[in-house]
Amino acid sequence: MNNKKIEFLETYLSLYIGHQEVLEVAGPDSPYVILDVRNAPVQVKKEQIKSAKAIAAKDLSSSLDKLDKDKTYVVYDWTAGTTLGKQALLILLTNGFKAFELSCALEGWKGMNLPMEEIK
Amino acid sequence: MNNKKIEFLETYLSLYIGHQEVLEVAGPDSPYVILDVRNAPVQVKKEQIKSAKAIAAKDLSSSLDKLDKDKTYVVYDWTAGTTLGKQALLILLTNGFKAFELSCALEGWKGMNLPMEEIK
Amino acid sequence: MNNKKIEFLETYLSLYIGHQEVLEVAGPDSPYVILDVRNAPVQVKKEQIKSAKAIAAKDLSSSLDKLDKDKTYVVYDWTAGTTLGKQALLILLTNGFKAFELSCALEGWKGMNLPMEEIK
Repeated sequence: MNNKKIEFLETYLSLYIGHQEVLEVAGPDSPYVILDVRNAPVQVKKEQIKSAKAIAAKDLSSSLDKLDKDKTYVVYDWTAGTTLGKQALLILLTNGFKAFELSCALEGWKGMNLPMEEIK
Repeated sequence: MNNKKIEFLETYLSLYIGHQEVLEVAGPDSPYVILDVRNAPVQVKKEQIKSAKAIAAKDLSSSLDKLDKDKTYVVYDWTAGTTLGKQALLILLTNGFKAFELSCALEGWKGMNLPMEEIK
Repeated sequence: MNNKKIEFLETYLSLYIGHQEVLEVAGPDSPYVILDVRNAPVQVKKEQIKSAKAIAAKDLSSSLDKLDKDKTYVVYDWTAGTTLGKQALLILLTNGFKAFELSCALEGWKGMNLPMEEIK
């Protein structure tokens, strides 16, 4: 049973990336592109993670030509409790992109007072 | 490794159903029955998802004769962070019922201002 | 597909332990040791679960000699939405310790008004 648990945890954790890893290499040459996949209009979202690219999860399958296979995408939704981030992640991985879910989602990022930006 | 991640995500996501899918076919002939599995007394719960059937997760194994194998059960607990919904889901699936966990749980439903009802 | 779902749920749920199980046998002879793995300084944590042992997840790999293979460790982080508890759990299990993640994390424990203690 322990082997099953270990394998489960390894796979589960391999889906995620932490904010430190993303922030350490932030900037124009970062290998990471933060992808805001929230299915909400701008007036509801109001702000996003600094320098994020916004493609709603519902539009992701039809927007893959806007993405770059040399980059690693870090998707996030409002909170860690939703399944939207994992839906987006599945679309990206099955289409051959490198991608992770942001650990703790937007909620965790804001809770740590990490850089945000207003959107219009 | 990517195949493992994809398989994991597919199985994980196959456990959940979103509120849209449930609401689109709401009504007396809906194939879905929303099942409130919170282990809390009525005075704590106060309200529930409109038209939900309430069977606490702790009573579910001994209440399976009240369920209908032609229906698909959509279980929910307070939040997505608890394991109670998954405990209920496991009981239902191992007993041959069709069932999903409601994505984002009661918290997400209320956050979207979807229909609720008072309970007494 | 149902077998896959059932196996997934069984493994997922096998990672967790509920507060009741821990509290029922609380005391100096308890088989359980609650392990606070939050990566935060004392002035941020301020309080912890009563009688918890604090080892930050980031220090866990280098602190395994402080743990007892006869005990069962119950790890917790702030909320159920983080991946830190699972990171700690993976370290413990791969090193041959018996361990679970506390279902609903500190958030759930406090939400139920279960015993806490100040830390200094």
